Amino acid sequence: MMILVDGYAADKIAVTDRGLSYGDGVFRTLRMVAGRVQNWHLHYAKLADDCARLALACPDKTLFEQDIAQFTGHHAGVIKLMVTRGDGLRGYAPPAMATPTRISMISALPHVDPARLSVGISARWCQLRLAHQPRLAGIKHLNRLENVLARAEWQDAAIAEGLLLDVAGNVIGGTMSNVFIVNNGVLSTPDLALCGIAGVTRARVLAYAKQLNWQVRITQLSQEAILAADEVMVVNSVIGIWQIRTLADKNWAAGSVTPLLRAYLEGDND
Amino acid sequence: MMILVDGYAADKIAVTDRGLSYGDGVFRTLRMVAGRVQNWHLHYAKLADDCARLALACPDKTLFEQDIAQFTGHHAGVIKLMVTRGDGLRGYAPPAMATPTRISMISALPHVDPARLSVGISARWCQLRLAHQPRLAGIKHLNRLENVLARAEWQDAAIAEGLLLDVAGNVIGGTMSNVFIVNNGVLSTPDLALCGIAGVTRARVLAYAKQLNWQVRITQLSQEAILAADEVMVVNSVIGIWQIRTLADKNWAAGSVTPLLRAYLEGDND
Repeated sequence: MMILVDGYAADKIAVTDRGLSYGDGVFRTLRMVAGRVQNWHLHYAKLADDCARLALACPDKTLFEQDIAQFTGHHAGVIKLMVTRGDGLRGYAPPAMATPTRISMISALPHVDPARLSVGISARWCQLRLAHQPRLAGIKHLNRLENVLARAEWQDAAIAEGLLLDVAGNVIGGTMSNVFIVNNGVLSTPDLALCGIAGVTRARVLAYAKQLNWQVRITQLSQEAILAADEVMVVNSVIGIWQIRTLADKNWAAGSVTPLLRAYLEGDND
Repeated sequence: MMILVDGYAADKIAVTDRGLSYGDGVFRTLRMVAGRVQNWHLHYAKLADDCARLALACPDKTLFEQDIAQFTGHHAGVIKLMVTRGDGLRGYAPPAMATPTRISMISALPHVDPARLSVGISARWCQLRLAHQPRLAGIKHLNRLENVLARAEWQDAAIAEGLLLDVAGNVIGGTMSNVFIVNNGVLSTPDLALCGIAGVTRARVLAYAKQLNWQVRITQLSQEAILAADEVMVVNSVIGIWQIRTLADKNWAAGSVTPLLRAYLEGDND
């Protein structure tokens, strides 16, 4: 593991950083393969968009690229990038002249059962309901207690992901992933206008489907719609794509769309 | 300023602390006057309650008391205490054997215009609407982006506080305070079952009102109810109590309940 804070090797940040005090910041999780960050340009664009939503000054792309260039000792790994509003006085008001803190770190790829990719996963429904906050919806910000509480609902290692509903009962995504379904040849994914994180891999799947002229819907999805689907999958930048083969009492056969999407996602579309 | 991390002087914490990664922790802000922390037992009880809500192991009271004993160089100040779930591997799942991080810090009392106490304040309505999340409501946790965004809505130093509505249009509190109104001899404060922070000072006001056999309502309060009230005040442990004298187009004369509550709050009820 290697951590850089504002470009310098360090494993600590100021206690008074607003990232800690208030979760006042955003982050990204990316995959490095063969010494190269996958989809870097898409990830930086999303980081910059998320910063803009919070009126945070996003550090220049070249600064992160210089950080990543320091990770040369790693052939493969998971890179996490964070931007916080920096050191702050006490109080919620963002400082007029905030200097963001830039954090870049790399760690080994987590060990994941290869069957999750080749066969698929078992998932569960989470009890926690996501709140509706349009001002924060879609952003990968540092206020992630809902994800923590949802992920704490189960310890069974055989369950790879939990699906989350919002307060209205619509399915929004997994605790760490976006969800897609295929039904009657239509690809659908939840509308994230009110909650959830709109990930880069979700955007890549949508772009690919558009390229192939698939029918796509960004819409409200009920639990029933998920259970009635021909194929259900979860995606993120680290795991890629996993088909859900078991969810509550429902089982699915191996689908044909997941491998197709996987082949695309394993490439780099920057 | 003095900062202790797990009892030792330090101004930094691990980048991998879950307090930073996810806002996975809670905090308290207390006032030290004449070398003594006001309402310490109430504050610790609230800290422990908040930890329990997040299944966080709250450090023993005596550990915080030892921290505070190190702040002997300060006669008066603002003490901030934090508990996070500690260092974590990547991923939302709380570690099975989490070791919480304990942070105690003291800084000088902020300079506040004394007229806010003696005369009262001007307040405004915030645009941001608080989301409903019963699992987190009432807790002073580290996911405070809603407060940050709400407080960022104005820069005018003449406006001392902003009042927040929830998604249903009910008034919940200030960006950094709880709100009370007095109308026709009844003291009311918002129900915080769905959002907001249930502060120690709010609890003290409610306890005092009960002691005096006042009529008290913990209820839904509309903007109209606030504007129609005889007296409106905001409270927290650092500011004490401020009467709102101006809010949008509405002005109030000096009230009689605010000074009564202030006299009580300036004492120590532990």
